[in-house]
Amino acid sequence: MTQQAFVDVAAHSDFPIQNLPYGVFSESPTGHRRIGVALGEWVVDLAVLEANGFLSIQAGESYFNQPTLNKFIESGQHNWRKIRQELQSLLSADNPTLRDNDSLRAQAFFAQAEVHMHLPVHIPGYTDFYSSKEHATNVGCMFRDPKNALLPNWSELPVGYNGRASSVVVSGTPVVRPSGQIKLPNAERPIFSACRKLDFELETGFIVGKPNKLGEPISIENAWEHIFGMVLFNDWSARDIQQWEYVPLGPFNAKTFASSISPWIVTMEALEPFKTRTPVQEPRPLAYLREEQVDNSYDIHLSVELKAAQSEQSDVICQTNFKYMYWSMAQQLTHHTVSGCNVQVGDLMGSGTISGPTPDSYGSLLELTWNTSKPLTLANGQQRGFLEDGDTLIMKGYCEKDGLRIGFGEVSGTVLPAVQFNFATDEVQDAAHETV
Amino acid sequence: MTQQAFVDVAAHSDFPIQNLPYGVFSESPTGHRRIGVALGEWVVDLAVLEANGFLSIQAGESYFNQPTLNKFIESGQHNWRKIRQELQSLLSADNPTLRDNDSLRAQAFFAQAEVHMHLPVHIPGYTDFYSSKEHATNVGCMFRDPKNALLPNWSELPVGYNGRASSVVVSGTPVVRPSGQIKLPNAERPIFSACRKLDFELETGFIVGKPNKLGEPISIENAWEHIFGMVLFNDWSARDIQQWEYVPLGPFNAKTFASSISPWIVTMEALEPFKTRTPVQEPRPLAYLREEQVDNSYDIHLSVELKAAQSEQSDVICQTNFKYMYWSMAQQLTHHTVSGCNVQVGDLMGSGTISGPTPDSYGSLLELTWNTSKPLTLANGQQRGFLEDGDTLIMKGYCEKDGLRIGFGEVSGTVLPAVQFNFATDEVQDAAHETV
Repeated sequence: MTQQAFVDVAAHSDFPIQNLPYGVFSESPTGHRRIGVALGEWVVDLAVLEANGFLSIQAGESYFNQPTLNKFIESGQHNWRKIRQELQSLLSADNPTLRDNDSLRAQAFFAQAEVHMHLPVHIPGYTDFYSSKEHATNVGCMFRDPKNALLPNWSELPVGYNGRASSVVVSGTPVVRPSGQIKLPNAERPIFSACRKLDFELETGFIVGKPNKLGEPISIENAWEHIFGMVLFNDWSARDIQQWEYVPLGPFNAKTFASSISPWIVTMEALEPFKTRTPVQEPRPLAYLREEQVDNSYDIHLSVELKAAQSEQSDVICQTNFKYMYWSMAQQLTHHTVSGCNVQVGDLMGSGTISGPTPDSYGSLLELTWNTSKPLTLANGQQRGFLEDGDTLIMKGYCEKDGLRIGFGEVSGTVLPAVQFNFATDEVQDAAHETV
Repeated sequence: MTQQAFVDVAAHSDFPIQNLPYGVFSESPTGHRRIGVALGEWVVDLAVLEANGFLSIQAGESYFNQPTLNKFIESGQHNWRKIRQELQSLLSADNPTLRDNDSLRAQAFFAQAEVHMHLPVHIPGYTDFYSSKEHATNVGCMFRDPKNALLPNWSELPVGYNGRASSVVVSGTPVVRPSGQIKLPNAERPIFSACRKLDFELETGFIVGKPNKLGEPISIENAWEHIFGMVLFNDWSARDIQQWEYVPLGPFNAKTFASSISPWIVTMEALEPFKTRTPVQEPRPLAYLREEQVDNSYDIHLSVELKAAQSEQSDVICQTNFKYMYWSMAQQLTHHTVSGCNVQVGDLMGSGTISGPTPDSYGSLLELTWNTSKPLTLANGQQRGFLEDGDTLIMKGYCEKDGLRIGFGEVSGTVLPAVQFNFATDEVQDAAHETV
């Protein structure tokens, strides 16, 4: 690793000077929100650097004294690269400008442990894909026909659906266990109940950096320049609600109660050294989805930890890698817009659950426990089929190569008990009565 | 009809003083956007009335000199009612205030025919339901099993899915025919093609007027007060793309290329005299969806007209009524939030295609032509299975009772030819080759 920051960055930090992911922070929970980059254990306040003229921004403009990154992202890829270079120069050990300016350093550096992170972008639209062949196969085996687990369209296009943008929350936001209709196997009718099969889905998401106009698709050649960066993403899922509701129009209440993202957006520039290829795509994709000559994926190690309510430590329950994903982010974006659909700056595109080839690399409890038939035993002796109230779920991700580590930090969330509905008892009795 | 406006309103106008729907207009396509109400053939500029102190709005505030209605809607139901009363008083024949102020009238009144209408609200989220039993049954007969056309969950909950808010457009916006993957019946693989089964869906939509917090469902008792008003809605659909893509996660590209709404939002207050009941709901809904003691639907006449490119006049191809809808808007909203999902001011909630019991009351070409097996013959002699380039589709809606007519105006759109992709020829050859 050549370039070094002028502050100490631990050897295994997610946030060396080569990373500089963007986030939105404040000093108190309701305090003034502005934009920073992560560096080691610090947040560097870009609003301060901008106000002091250290970044080449037009006079009177502000990209960083903003409550979201949207305005900066809208400024375009050329500007992303320019600001990144300026920051790397300004923060490097051999540049005295900021290094030797004690008062400005005191103003601009905050300990990550002491600030509050917020949603980094306003997310106008959220789409979730389904691009892991292993995950789609596992789900198909469990809920449809094991002999034809993968549906015919899956290998031809990156299957996706519109999600609910309003309920995307930042890491650390507690998640209330959802309630809804559940159809028990031998019941005539559904019951109203708190979810009994609350799950996570290990995903990444990318943030759209450049819009297209309605009616003007993004070609596969141009797709990458529309992508600003990536986050970790937990697509919380209520499996029992989903199973009853999802035919024929797809998941709805089972997915709209919360979707959590990590607070730091890692830029595509920072991920550049970790490019790799998607798995071989067979059959060969139709022409509009072909990108055969480029490294179109990334080698990102991903893991999931579960920490039970009273436990001191967490168990690693899944280890996988982004590189297993069959469809690339460019293919997802191109397919999304091929019918003319417009995307907007800040849109979140979820990868779909990232499952690897081995049972310890499955990206959901549904798969890890094979729908509770193989419960996990935690280090504290407890068993888990699905998530229990008080469980904290933590996802982490990083790239590593030739001594360089570019990390995502984490996305976490704790499960809170379901809302108490005052008709719940009646309802269960009704349902029981009707099934006699 | 007792109350009269001080301007002439034709007997069959959609917009008497009892209606006063809200919209956003400008004098030129890119001109200054502000809010008006429709009255007869006029738009009354509320920004002018507000600026002249005719509406009780806090000093320094502006609800109506705004590019969208969101700020006014956020001000709350109490305020909606107060402003409506003030407007009805100010515009009535027996109030000299505005009636006799020629210069202010000249400033505030614009001919509808001469202004440009825009999206009336910023739509943070769009959800589409599927609440017509007749429509769901027809589709089930065509694409699934006629003997079990209605899926088991349909009668238990208002099935819905997240749509794409970014591609919601205002009436008059042309619609580019989408392209995408189509799987022909005897082909091994899909081809890339312009949509060959472009359809409309006759719907209404309601606009959310009051948000809820994430994790705090809206109860059925409180749901109505979260609804601001209604619009006409055309959920353009690419049937061939949909049929291939929709399993298992629902429609995506088939619906995200455009969804058109009428420019005027008719308030729930204006619709009050036309309340009626939904059809009997059997089985009795679970407790969280029960609203048995209230008139929970509206008697709204709806029609669809098709005007071919070179034709002088349009053919009425569907006549139906909103009152056929099985699930109420309150039930849709309650179900949407029961898992904890938050809705936001301006959210659009589509009813789902509104089909009536008779073949001339079906709300889509898919149903009207029974998937092209019974093509329509237009007055000009042309036949239609689905929409052709140049076709203009017009939806209209109104309520009428005791001499009072409350109308929605119309939502229209013209189909433009598909985008030309430079790989299209190769692609078709590839596909042809592969299917030999």
